[in-house]
Amino acid sequence: MTMRSTNENVAAVMHDINEVRVEQRSMPEPGEHEVLVEVRSVGVCGSDIHFFEHGRIGLSVVEPPHVLGHEAAGVVVAHGSGTSGPPIGSRVALEPSLPCGRCRLCREGRYNLCPDMRYFSDPPTDGAFMRYVTIHEDFAFLVPDNVSDDAAALIEPVSVVLWAARCTNLKAGDHILVTGAGPIGLLMVQVARALGATKVVVSDVNSSRLDRAEQVGASRIVDVSETPLHEAGVEVDAFIECSGHPAALSDGIKCVRAGGVATVVGMGPHEDATIPLAIMQAREIRLQPTFRFANTYPAAIDLVASGAVAPEAIITGHFGLKEIEQALWASRRDPTSIKSIVRVQQ
Amino acid sequence: MTMRSTNENVAAVMHDINEVRVEQRSMPEPGEHEVLVEVRSVGVCGSDIHFFEHGRIGLSVVEPPHVLGHEAAGVVVAHGSGTSGPPIGSRVALEPSLPCGRCRLCREGRYNLCPDMRYFSDPPTDGAFMRYVTIHEDFAFLVPDNVSDDAAALIEPVSVVLWAARCTNLKAGDHILVTGAGPIGLLMVQVARALGATKVVVSDVNSSRLDRAEQVGASRIVDVSETPLHEAGVEVDAFIECSGHPAALSDGIKCVRAGGVATVVGMGPHEDATIPLAIMQAREIRLQPTFRFANTYPAAIDLVASGAVAPEAIITGHFGLKEIEQALWASRRDPTSIKSIVRVQQ
Amino acid sequence: MTMRSTNENVAAVMHDINEVRVEQRSMPEPGEHEVLVEVRSVGVCGSDIHFFEHGRIGLSVVEPPHVLGHEAAGVVVAHGSGTSGPPIGSRVALEPSLPCGRCRLCREGRYNLCPDMRYFSDPPTDGAFMRYVTIHEDFAFLVPDNVSDDAAALIEPVSVVLWAARCTNLKAGDHILVTGAGPIGLLMVQVARALGATKVVVSDVNSSRLDRAEQVGASRIVDVSETPLHEAGVEVDAFIECSGHPAALSDGIKCVRAGGVATVVGMGPHEDATIPLAIMQAREIRLQPTFRFANTYPAAIDLVASGAVAPEAIITGHFGLKEIEQALWASRRDPTSIKSIVRVQQ
Amino acid sequence: MTMRSTNENVAAVMHDINEVRVEQRSMPEPGEHEVLVEVRSVGVCGSDIHFFEHGRIGLSVVEPPHVLGHEAAGVVVAHGSGTSGPPIGSRVALEPSLPCGRCRLCREGRYNLCPDMRYFSDPPTDGAFMRYVTIHEDFAFLVPDNVSDDAAALIEPVSVVLWAARCTNLKAGDHILVTGAGPIGLLMVQVARALGATKVVVSDVNSSRLDRAEQVGASRIVDVSETPLHEAGVEVDAFIECSGHPAALSDGIKCVRAGGVATVVGMGPHEDATIPLAIMQAREIRLQPTFRFANTYPAAIDLVASGAVAPEAIITGHFGLKEIEQALWASRRDPTSIKSIVRVQQ
Repeated sequence: MTMRSTNENVAAVMHDINEVRVEQRSMPEPGEHEVLVEVRSVGVCGSDIHFFEHGRIGLSVVEPPHVLGHEAAGVVVAHGSGTSGPPIGSRVALEPSLPCGRCRLCREGRYNLCPDMRYFSDPPTDGAFMRYVTIHEDFAFLVPDNVSDDAAALIEPVSVVLWAARCTNLKAGDHILVTGAGPIGLLMVQVARALGATKVVVSDVNSSRLDRAEQVGASRIVDVSETPLHEAGVEVDAFIECSGHPAALSDGIKCVRAGGVATVVGMGPHEDATIPLAIMQAREIRLQPTFRFANTYPAAIDLVASGAVAPEAIITGHFGLKEIEQALWASRRDPTSIKSIVRVQQ
Repeated sequence: MTMRSTNENVAAVMHDINEVRVEQRSMPEPGEHEVLVEVRSVGVCGSDIHFFEHGRIGLSVVEPPHVLGHEAAGVVVAHGSGTSGPPIGSRVALEPSLPCGRCRLCREGRYNLCPDMRYFSDPPTDGAFMRYVTIHEDFAFLVPDNVSDDAAALIEPVSVVLWAARCTNLKAGDHILVTGAGPIGLLMVQVARALGATKVVVSDVNSSRLDRAEQVGASRIVDVSETPLHEAGVEVDAFIECSGHPAALSDGIKCVRAGGVATVVGMGPHEDATIPLAIMQAREIRLQPTFRFANTYPAAIDLVASGAVAPEAIITGHFGLKEIEQALWASRRDPTSIKSIVRVQQ
Repeated sequence: MTMRSTNENVAAVMHDINEVRVEQRSMPEPGEHEVLVEVRSVGVCGSDIHFFEHGRIGLSVVEPPHVLGHEAAGVVVAHGSGTSGPPIGSRVALEPSLPCGRCRLCREGRYNLCPDMRYFSDPPTDGAFMRYVTIHEDFAFLVPDNVSDDAAALIEPVSVVLWAARCTNLKAGDHILVTGAGPIGLLMVQVARALGATKVVVSDVNSSRLDRAEQVGASRIVDVSETPLHEAGVEVDAFIECSGHPAALSDGIKCVRAGGVATVVGMGPHEDATIPLAIMQAREIRLQPTFRFANTYPAAIDLVASGAVAPEAIITGHFGLKEIEQALWASRRDPTSIKSIVRVQQ
Repeated sequence: MTMRSTNENVAAVMHDINEVRVEQRSMPEPGEHEVLVEVRSVGVCGSDIHFFEHGRIGLSVVEPPHVLGHEAAGVVVAHGSGTSGPPIGSRVALEPSLPCGRCRLCREGRYNLCPDMRYFSDPPTDGAFMRYVTIHEDFAFLVPDNVSDDAAALIEPVSVVLWAARCTNLKAGDHILVTGAGPIGLLMVQVARALGATKVVVSDVNSSRLDRAEQVGASRIVDVSETPLHEAGVEVDAFIECSGHPAALSDGIKCVRAGGVATVVGMGPHEDATIPLAIMQAREIRLQPTFRFANTYPAAIDLVASGAVAPEAIITGHFGLKEIEQALWASRRDPTSIKSIVRVQQ
């Protein structure tokens, strides 16, 4: 049985750096334990833009033709054999992970570190800027009616920051610093609030983003183009780096109290980073890098459904699949753009 | 220097079981590192009522004359020698603890378990149903203007449940069960919500209290006088027992999923308890008793100041010091009574 | 390719309570990602004896014909398709688990709680009192030459106690109490020592077992047939119940210091248990039941290979497959018997 | 009452860089809750040498006259008022800490981070290269007869590495890398073994120290003057940096498996350090600096008394108080020197 609206599949396919074409793709057949999903909303992530501009991120190299996009939600339209997961017709958020399930890391519950992970849009695995995709039934999560398609797509970046909060061991009453008020930083503010953080300082150099930070729950903003962090008198229990800027990491760590933690979510441009180690030793400041997430989707969906986290608040533009280039360029060209959503059926 | 309004101290003094008299007391002098506090609001705790009715709780035996009350807030009116804590004139919530600060447990950060603890109202230490009390400066915590005297007094029970949440390792997205919708259970609901719990089931036999539970954030209520828990289809990540009823403990544990936790806050009538051990073994359900709290006041005050927790929502009556008996009896005589506040200056 | 010594498979098959017959079985074919193992040593576990005598443990009911045995080691003699695990000819310890790998608990790293677990000898899954068994390649762990077949078989109970130590959060310098000096209790002593426990008190009613406890590292033994625990002046950081006796649980908990933990490994005869809850509350004693183990085999093998843990020290008898009844009855009939090993090829 | 052997106190007093003189000091009087200790053995720490050569470590500046030495043990010879601690005549290891006991960090059990800490030999607090010192009774720990004076003095560096092991969350079966085979690295090997680490790789450039590492339990040594770490094929669960060399930190981190941890004990020469952040992010490698220790003395003494840790194995020379300069220079002048002990009564 299938409920799909069409027999045609269409994808935005990257063929070279800065070159993406919307073209036909064959309709995928859901395999064993898989579901076929008619994709609705797909968020544009900074990594999509980076792949598009540079063709690579670290060791991950795009080999065209390649499909980007991994923040996705849609509707289940067909089941593969043996599938007992989300019923046909149900709305789902897609966790873009497919870990091996067998290695030491998978068995220890850290499947985000699985060396054999296949992850939507991470080469050579195709992503979700596409009308129809298949996904293992275990990674398609039902969303309730009060969670929109856009919000369901953004469960992915919500998961990134929820995982960061867990790895930080964020506690109610904590005072935190978030550097970078892009999509991740802004969602971090929301999730930190939802977990009981009572003071949330946000720094950036973009005043439009800082305004948005205040709207989503920052108790204080610091425009570091005017006031460097070390002059801002910030002292926090936890610092969460969401910008990828090398200086932000070092400056932020210095704001952490003795016994606190510095969590690194943002991906920077360099292999190496400089940290103020002597201060970190005297204060026993833990440095905790995070990578994607594991076991976050149910909680992230619950938090959004309960209203505690509202990811739509960071959306600044909607695009059809044919406007994919505009969607990808938006945040580069418009300083007020934060998160673009591609409605792949349009 | 002192700012106190009067030179007279007055206390509600327990002289025997069911006998309390309001009488003059000498004005206490703040010692080294102490502050003198003009008490404003004092909450009536279940333990106050129990001491009043039975003269003892377990091994703690009242030796009259004795002053009850340990949920207190007031204004600093004088400093002892060497005191550099909250300035004279400042409003403070009183953490009723005075641990030794030297034993193994104190040094390990678990001062709530200090064997030499002196705790307001726990015999032989006098409590705070009194116009003026002294307290070590380290345990008088500044409260901001938007936290009322009543709310400041209730930082103590908020601390009890915040500690329970910490010991539970409550996580965002958790589904929890709270048995008992008295003051502790209701604050537990609020704090769980503030920490990101997304489903909160509350059970009790008192419909008035269950209504209040819904008002403060319960997503579902179960009247166990009508539907036993085991017929209610409840399955949770964490169960927090706040009633002290032996059956609630056993029934609640059976609602915990594999890998979950059962936290015991409520004090029951018996030395021993019966638990469903075979189920707990098959599911590896941790049983975590909690005792008072440690290092919670700053976070609890922050949560109240931020509006995430609103302890006034459980207050059902105000009394002057001379109405102490009515205050103590209120919850026994009126099924709609939850938390009484004594305004000791009246 | 195969290296097996014979084309015949033989098993000790339970046909009824107290009735086991050695008989032919078909040679199993290793499926995808499976290995065929020529079994060498299989330990007799208390649960084997219990199934044999009573036909059930809790909700697990033997449906004959059934094969017991889950503490096993052997040699890989054939590979199924797609298998890249332990090479043919290699010696392996068999982790008797086969979790689904997909459910929430598996994905969170707690696969021992998987509701779809298939576990050697736990009905309806057959066990390893058999010449040839198949097992998923991921659960057949290479053992080095200096780990004997018997020791390799006992990696299973070593895993049970290593898991208990982890769940206890056992720390170097801890003082611990172990109640019950059977196979699990004795291995617990060894593993606790290997992890740095510096005082290990062991209690039992069997003087022969207590002697053995001293041999394997107990710093003190208490014969509770002579001196009840509450008169023995024991105070510990952690108590690990390994006897299954209801009184041991309650008595042992009372020996735990404030802030300590009581871990329950032993399976008792009853659904419910009585615990000294008032004491546990005043001291915040955590009760931690454990169930089997997860992710322990590599570490357990390493500990045995390094000499830190010597499971042969608890072996008291060797039996051929045809002597299976004697092996099962040994611990019932001989108070000096502790752990029997069945050499299934004999 | 007092048992001291003499009325004269003598100390090795630092008057300038590279200038230390043995001279008379007044006999200290033990204050309230203090004991007077006749010092026996004092270890020379790298920090003593650094203060002696450079007059400072980071922000800690020697203001002469100043007494170095903080690894000390002795005999209690007098009590101050109110003291109920170790009896007169008892042998004690001196924990050189005196935290305030009142600040947030003290109350949370992390007193090693107390901003008001007074620590033996850390300016302006005098140390223990002195015949008689006073110490708070809570920080003088009884040692049993089978722990020598030298071993008792070295409970301090044993505490440093035990704390590092705790902060690492070192687990039985872990494979670890220790960079730097000086006193701290060598004790780290011993403590890691005592906690169940089953593979311990040690790297250094000094072959004499590497030989010693093998003697105390290293399973593999890497002479990085011959083979750089990145060519040595090392992969570990935990890496503990004990050398203070910037390159060792970066090279060691690259040897950590996904999900592992890098702990920093060694103090380096620079404020900042370079770390391979991209790798740490992809593998979620936690960086955990440690600073001194808290709540380690009882466990450290137990581990030494039980024989699991043998700190005498790192001692390479004994000196009288008048030979203090030789003692300080030993490790600079003799590549085979590791730990010098000063017998201050000689």
